[in-house]
Amino acid sequence: MLTTEMNTTRLIEEVRDEVEAARARGLRVGCVPTMGALHEGHLSLIRRARQECDYVLTTIFVNPTQFGPSEDLSKYPRPLETDLSLCREEQVDLVFHPDESTMYPPGESTVVDVGGLDSIWEGAHRPGHFRGVSTVVAKLFNIVWAHDAYFGQKDYQQQLLIRRMCKDLCLPVRIQTCPIVRDPDGLALSSRNVYLSDEERQSALALSQSLKLAREQLAAGKEPSAVRAAMLEHLNGTSNVAEQYATVADAETLEELDHVRSEMVALVAAKVGSTRLIDNELISLE
Amino acid sequence: MLTTEMNTTRLIEEVRDEVEAARARGLRVGCVPTMGALHEGHLSLIRRARQECDYVLTTIFVNPTQFGPSEDLSKYPRPLETDLSLCREEQVDLVFHPDESTMYPPGESTVVDVGGLDSIWEGAHRPGHFRGVSTVVAKLFNIVWAHDAYFGQKDYQQQLLIRRMCKDLCLPVRIQTCPIVRDPDGLALSSRNVYLSDEERQSALALSQSLKLAREQLAAGKEPSAVRAAMLEHLNGTSNVAEQYATVADAETLEELDHVRSEMVALVAAKVGSTRLIDNELISLE
Repeated sequence: MLTTEMNTTRLIEEVRDEVEAARARGLRVGCVPTMGALHEGHLSLIRRARQECDYVLTTIFVNPTQFGPSEDLSKYPRPLETDLSLCREEQVDLVFHPDESTMYPPGESTVVDVGGLDSIWEGAHRPGHFRGVSTVVAKLFNIVWAHDAYFGQKDYQQQLLIRRMCKDLCLPVRIQTCPIVRDPDGLALSSRNVYLSDEERQSALALSQSLKLAREQLAAGKEPSAVRAAMLEHLNGTSNVAEQYATVADAETLEELDHVRSEMVALVAAKVGSTRLIDNELISLE
Repeated sequence: MLTTEMNTTRLIEEVRDEVEAARARGLRVGCVPTMGALHEGHLSLIRRARQECDYVLTTIFVNPTQFGPSEDLSKYPRPLETDLSLCREEQVDLVFHPDESTMYPPGESTVVDVGGLDSIWEGAHRPGHFRGVSTVVAKLFNIVWAHDAYFGQKDYQQQLLIRRMCKDLCLPVRIQTCPIVRDPDGLALSSRNVYLSDEERQSALALSQSLKLAREQLAAGKEPSAVRAAMLEHLNGTSNVAEQYATVADAETLEELDHVRSEMVALVAAKVGSTRLIDNELISLE
């Protein structure tokens, strides 16, 4: 480790100086990009980075361009002091928490579009979302210049898209995807879970339950179309839940499947009350 | 200098290794991105890089995505051996001349759009051109990781667009723009000049002549609209010349001007026979 004290900065130049110094010392640099409101899912990424890298950097930035006009940008939780304490406990070396005007200065006009993957599933339900994601992640990677960057499988399509972007733009960073962290009852951790009432939180279990259904039915030999119908039925049969999509797709292309493949992913998105949640599960048939 | 022999490679990994080794030795890395068919204009960029940097890298890649379907991609000159000799004479350290499938592997789908600047003047006449430019330059910068990159003022809008992209995407490279190199009669050097017949080459002088007209008339106090009219009249009065645009614009925004400003640029594009040429001149009024 380069430092025993955690540093924090809002400044691009400071990040560059710190990272370049670390790299010059031969240290392996790991980056965990987040929007803050850190939970055990994020912490699992930081711990993995801490295991694999010598210098760990977390970015905290609620990226406005990945929120739609009717989404929850203004109410998205921003508990910065708590987040910094958590990072300190996990022995993060540097937290970069830029202001909006640092990431999007006046006059900026450049976007990164990944194409293909950006217009289906999450992309179809959240127009412009992935443009916001790919653009801000490209900026962050150009600022941070990490060897490795850690993303959660929870945002399955996002990590695929970022892998595609890095490959296509020749960004010299290795993308590492880490398993979904769940509460004991199966609910995938999300910064948005804080919006749920007690009753909604119970209803929200329908998402992970529908994935379990998919796994069991595919293992039992059912075709993806029948499995999708069962997932939808389960979601729509749960009070407070309005399904947005539920599908079994190719794990690489996210193409919806008619027949089983060796590597599949079950994807689900639903509104629970007014809170939009997503979940997924990788399914391999032997 | 890191090496006395010039290296050449088609491989991204080899570029990365060489550049990282150079940077690790504290050397300043300069990059000159080109499409080959090198002329004195390109060589002036390489010489400037040679003066300012310790390690000089030239890229040679005829980028297909910046050519329109009816443009000259297939006949664009590709004198690789001559280009390599010229680079060797200029003491270039490394030439990166990737294959098309290296820069655009199967399945790639990511584009970089700069917005604003990409849709006017050259962008309006060459739809998709600047998307191709910004996308390939982003890839090259991510491969090369240079301190400085050198572009010619000849492609004035291109260098503005690349500056904008680097700022917006936080690419840690300094863009250096070098003066236009001209033949003694005023014709701006271009790899496309080889397409011109002797007669067309004479006609092509109308471009630089129209810029001279603009400079003189602005200095004499004429308003930009009158100056534009004079430029157009001169171009259209020359045989073999079909004007595409001729204007006096703000040097930063490229907005067409009604009234003089302190920093202006006169821009011109025309077909001379079947060859499309561009030229420009910066004009400062004291």
